[in-house]
Amino acid sequence: MIERNNLMNQIRKGIYTSPTSGLVHGYAQANLVVLPKKDAYDFLLFCQRNKQACPLLDVTDVGSPVPQMIGANADIRTDLPRYRVYRYGVLTEERTDITSLWEEDMVGFMIGCSFTFEDALIANEIPIRHQEENVNVPMYQTSIPCEGAGIFHGNVVVSMRPVPEEQAVRASLVTARFPSVHGAPIHIGNPAAIGITNIHKPDFGDQVTIKDGEVPVFWACGVTPQAVAMASKPALMITHAPGHMFITEIKNEQLGVL
Amino acid sequence: MIERNNLMNQIRKGIYTSPTSGLVHGYAQANLVVLPKKDAYDFLLFCQRNKQACPLLDVTDVGSPVPQMIGANADIRTDLPRYRVYRYGVLTEERTDITSLWEEDMVGFMIGCSFTFEDALIANEIPIRHQEENVNVPMYQTSIPCEGAGIFHGNVVVSMRPVPEEQAVRASLVTARFPSVHGAPIHIGNPAAIGITNIHKPDFGDQVTIKDGEVPVFWACGVTPQAVAMASKPALMITHAPGHMFITEIKNEQLGVL
Repeated sequence: MIERNNLMNQIRKGIYTSPTSGLVHGYAQANLVVLPKKDAYDFLLFCQRNKQACPLLDVTDVGSPVPQMIGANADIRTDLPRYRVYRYGVLTEERTDITSLWEEDMVGFMIGCSFTFEDALIANEIPIRHQEENVNVPMYQTSIPCEGAGIFHGNVVVSMRPVPEEQAVRASLVTARFPSVHGAPIHIGNPAAIGITNIHKPDFGDQVTIKDGEVPVFWACGVTPQAVAMASKPALMITHAPGHMFITEIKNEQLGVL
Repeated sequence: MIERNNLMNQIRKGIYTSPTSGLVHGYAQANLVVLPKKDAYDFLLFCQRNKQACPLLDVTDVGSPVPQMIGANADIRTDLPRYRVYRYGVLTEERTDITSLWEEDMVGFMIGCSFTFEDALIANEIPIRHQEENVNVPMYQTSIPCEGAGIFHGNVVVSMRPVPEEQAVRASLVTARFPSVHGAPIHIGNPAAIGITNIHKPDFGDQVTIKDGEVPVFWACGVTPQAVAMASKPALMITHAPGHMFITEIKNEQLGVL
């Protein structure tokens, strides 16, 4: 475990540019979507209508890069390890800083990330394979449609963790306590049932080993807006790079219910 | 219990114009806020930042009076028993139909109502005094500030139910299962601690008896936007009349977590 302030400095300076799963245990993590104000209402409504994929932890004031409710000391233009830039639905660029792209009318949407409940899974002796294998979590496009809102439409993206069959229900219960970081799984088992044709070829992140006796468990993922950008083709959407999250100033457990 | 379709017809026709607590058991109820599109982003953000007071169940498309996700067969202009009209922060009118006020750019916000979890409280042998006394639930302005968003600011409004002291924790647990209809109480006990000077004079709804051995329990209330209208003074905000709710097409239990 890396010391929090040290890591945050390394991220801010562009020195740490890797995925954030398993880093600074205890602090919630968040996905990022940046849009100009003209598209912000449609996207805010999209999040409201698709709470499991896009549970909002915070929305910045127009033009402000500070997520007051989850990171009053942060700047979302520099404080994520890696960003993606989508123009008219095409991924045009990856960068480690978006300061030069920031405009006065931009709004940052901070969406809960399932890395947040991985500590709770580990505490329940449920293994996190991508941490064990030191890779990014595997993520997949699905055939599950989101509810559209204004210009935004597209399908849900999921993250996948292999879980021993006998622990799949426990994994569901443990994560259901954290609805603001995607909550319970949306699917357990057969990948084809949700439109995933090859479990060994994730659309985002890395492949992980699925051992005998394990079942793939799928959680709604905050990369969904990136699939939505590709489908809806807004002029500009800036996001985190999948797996390269914003580390908030709030504790995982503060997001737990019951 | 009144038969659902019969009641919905009576409401639509303006025959039933009374509070809705305890009506058509099993169906979730919702608060209403109608605003022109120009104020809709600020209000949607206000709801996102104040989820306990303003948990959104649905937001209509611009100009549509149909809340697709919670009442695909409904029309929010006619299907609530009573409405209030706030102009520049002043309550100017109460009506039983807002069709003639509806404009093409209007947006309806449907906010979860705590009447939804009253069935669960009753199932736990926790009495609902305003139902027993056949009056509207008492509601109070508090000194608890909401997080502001754009033009909207103001204090939280709470509903109050007297609960036998030994059942206050149980009442908290039972209602915490329903975060989208305000969830757990925000305060138990001393009204003065949240700025309520006279528990016998509610700001909205009716007074109820608090018996010896009972403690007042306060839940965040979807009338909060009406206090916010009074504080923020938007040109126009149309709401339900406190206690006179929209009865959705979804079941209470569908909103329960864990």
